[in-house]
Amino acid sequence: MERPSYLPSTLRPPRAQCLAVVMVGLPARGKTYISRKLARYLSWLGYQTRVFNVGAYRRERLGMKHTHEFFDPSNMEAESARRSMARAAMEDMLGWFREGGEVAIYDATNHTRDRRAMVRQGCERAGVPVLFVESICDDEAIIASTVREIKLNSPDYVGVDPDEAVQDFSARIAHYEQRYETLDASDGSFVKLINVGHELVLHDLRGDLPGRLVRVLMNLHIVPRPVWLTRHGESAYNVAKRVGGDADLTPRGERFAVRLTDFFNDHVIPGDDVQVWTSTLKRATQTARYLPSPLVTWRALDEIDAGIFDGMTYEEIKAQHPEEYARRQKDKLRYRYPRGESYEDVIQRLEPIIIELERQRSPTMVITHRAVLRCLYAYFLDQPPSSCTRLDVPLHTVIELTPNAYGCDEERVPLGDPVPEEV
Amino acid sequence: MERPSYLPSTLRPPRAQCLAVVMVGLPARGKTYISRKLARYLSWLGYQTRVFNVGAYRRERLGMKHTHEFFDPSNMEAESARRSMARAAMEDMLGWFREGGEVAIYDATNHTRDRRAMVRQGCERAGVPVLFVESICDDEAIIASTVREIKLNSPDYVGVDPDEAVQDFSARIAHYEQRYETLDASDGSFVKLINVGHELVLHDLRGDLPGRLVRVLMNLHIVPRPVWLTRHGESAYNVAKRVGGDADLTPRGERFAVRLTDFFNDHVIPGDDVQVWTSTLKRATQTARYLPSPLVTWRALDEIDAGIFDGMTYEEIKAQHPEEYARRQKDKLRYRYPRGESYEDVIQRLEPIIIELERQRSPTMVITHRAVLRCLYAYFLDQPPSSCTRLDVPLHTVIELTPNAYGCDEERVPLGDPVPEEV
Repeated sequence: MERPSYLPSTLRPPRAQCLAVVMVGLPARGKTYISRKLARYLSWLGYQTRVFNVGAYRRERLGMKHTHEFFDPSNMEAESARRSMARAAMEDMLGWFREGGEVAIYDATNHTRDRRAMVRQGCERAGVPVLFVESICDDEAIIASTVREIKLNSPDYVGVDPDEAVQDFSARIAHYEQRYETLDASDGSFVKLINVGHELVLHDLRGDLPGRLVRVLMNLHIVPRPVWLTRHGESAYNVAKRVGGDADLTPRGERFAVRLTDFFNDHVIPGDDVQVWTSTLKRATQTARYLPSPLVTWRALDEIDAGIFDGMTYEEIKAQHPEEYARRQKDKLRYRYPRGESYEDVIQRLEPIIIELERQRSPTMVITHRAVLRCLYAYFLDQPPSSCTRLDVPLHTVIELTPNAYGCDEERVPLGDPVPEEV
Repeated sequence: MERPSYLPSTLRPPRAQCLAVVMVGLPARGKTYISRKLARYLSWLGYQTRVFNVGAYRRERLGMKHTHEFFDPSNMEAESARRSMARAAMEDMLGWFREGGEVAIYDATNHTRDRRAMVRQGCERAGVPVLFVESICDDEAIIASTVREIKLNSPDYVGVDPDEAVQDFSARIAHYEQRYETLDASDGSFVKLINVGHELVLHDLRGDLPGRLVRVLMNLHIVPRPVWLTRHGESAYNVAKRVGGDADLTPRGERFAVRLTDFFNDHVIPGDDVQVWTSTLKRATQTARYLPSPLVTWRALDEIDAGIFDGMTYEEIKAQHPEEYARRQKDKLRYRYPRGESYEDVIQRLEPIIIELERQRSPTMVITHRAVLRCLYAYFLDQPPSSCTRLDVPLHTVIELTPNAYGCDEERVPLGDPVPEEV
């Protein structure tokens, strides 16, 4: 029996799995956007994840400037160069799997059966199953906006006249269209995404991981809207430096609740279908109590469960349970409070919250707790899970996040009384 | 503001939602199987759910025996009778929505655009969004097995010679094929299921609830395999009649662990890829410790969290917190232990476990706790959530469940020492 006989407790799937997600699609179909989104989600859940972008190999090894002629399928020399870049990225990917990588995202057009067969055979020889994800778009408005985006941001067109860039890029797309072959049953497992989640085709999907990825792909949208994250107002336990508990707000915390309501009223546009989510704990619902929106309380937003240490100060834990204290210092991400939770546990239980937040098209205010907020923040800002345990998320501050095509804008708005530094 | 200003804490979607799931497909494509599966899942999650089967209206109102001529589209009189049955079922469904129904499953062939437009307009006028679910099957082996199943079980063919039944039923299918129109963009939101989950097409899906249904539909399969549910062996807390805690096994509990291993070895066929899942609590992992399979420990399988009453006996709770005790007696399903969980909470956190168990194609042994086992059992045996709080699940007994097309077979195997009656 090769597998460990006792796996860590987790909501992750029962078996160690690896997977190569292989993107398919013409240029300007959002492949890179989707690749990053999937990578961010998987990394946050704790998978060893990496994107292998064939275009980056081309730029790095063959230089930056390639006009559309390089992508002409009748240009045999260029075709051979492009094929060798695809191979190089694939070899690196397979090497990375050998070193323990779990999910690779292979980001390239892979627009011919021939090219896809090459990637698939390479992966399957290495024992890595393949899932193709094709992005198809026939909505001219979406394509035009993506082309504009690429023209402005692509390293391929730095310093090039914008009109010229658009022209060249359109010619490049036309070269790919010539030989484009959409996915079919001969490609094995695949997901086809048509017009950013408007239609999905799922073919021969097996297993938990592809199912999770489908949930992310189903909820893709590019409607900008803010997510306001905040901790509850100061509670009696904050003052006493005790962890956990279910204390009431202090007068300072109460003032924050009032100021948060002002913030809310200043930022919400009438007609916005705003949602306010809180944990089930008193300090969170009390913080929300003056808000004009109905509340939704989620147990999944409750603070990390400190188990048998609930209600103690860190000083007391250190004095009475020095070994536990030391274990926690050593690996705060994985350390599980006796009869309580680890940060890793918190991330797992927050997964439905992330899916729901991604799905929302209107603003959402989330009133929660330090550890939980750190985990949510790490997702949006694409921080590694290990950073969750240290991120700075002060009391009495609203963090406004606005997800965009390439990440997330952040603004921090301090509201109300400053609070003494926390441990 | 019409919505309540404070919704119960839940992992359910933030908004009260209702939905009409309208099945589409030829006879013998598993529509009724899928309808029941979705209904069972949704009821268990706490949605007010009901299946409206148009065939049942026909049998009830027009009598049992209809030969294939009744389904001939050129038979205008029958066509009109069938249409009025479809309307009657729809009117009942809309009435049920008005009385607070949340998710209706409208089970009929709905194989023409015309008929679907009728159902959709009726629902939309009542403010109920519609999701079509079409089951397409071109695998002759699956169809033949479904036809056989129907021939054996359908109330339409009671007392009919089997060969004659198959012939008539095939003629009935042929009538429907004549006018069959598959779903397309004009139908709005839909899911197409091709060959029992081999391929899915998701069109214009919005919202959390359709997303959840897709997860169920993605994992449909009809490979029979047992699920063995058992509680841990007797623990010191069982003897002391204390709730919660993290006690060790008693000698009697230890003997159960040994006997469970014998049971396992007797029932597992070499080569079976058996999974053993336990909670993270000592009494569960100790019960599993002699099993020859690696364990997967899930926090989601931990016992209901008794919050501030953890470690107390029911007598003590009653004596020290009579009001809480009385509240719990009144509504055990929704009663949440202070700082702990309700049965409803437990069901929500078990949802990923159910999805995983449905997905498995090989046997799974689940070693868990009384409240958790009750909730899992209620799902498989299609018991209402309210029954969860009372189901009889004794210690030292393996419950073998084998899901089949129309429900679940159950066998109970007592192993080891009898244990005194529990409260």
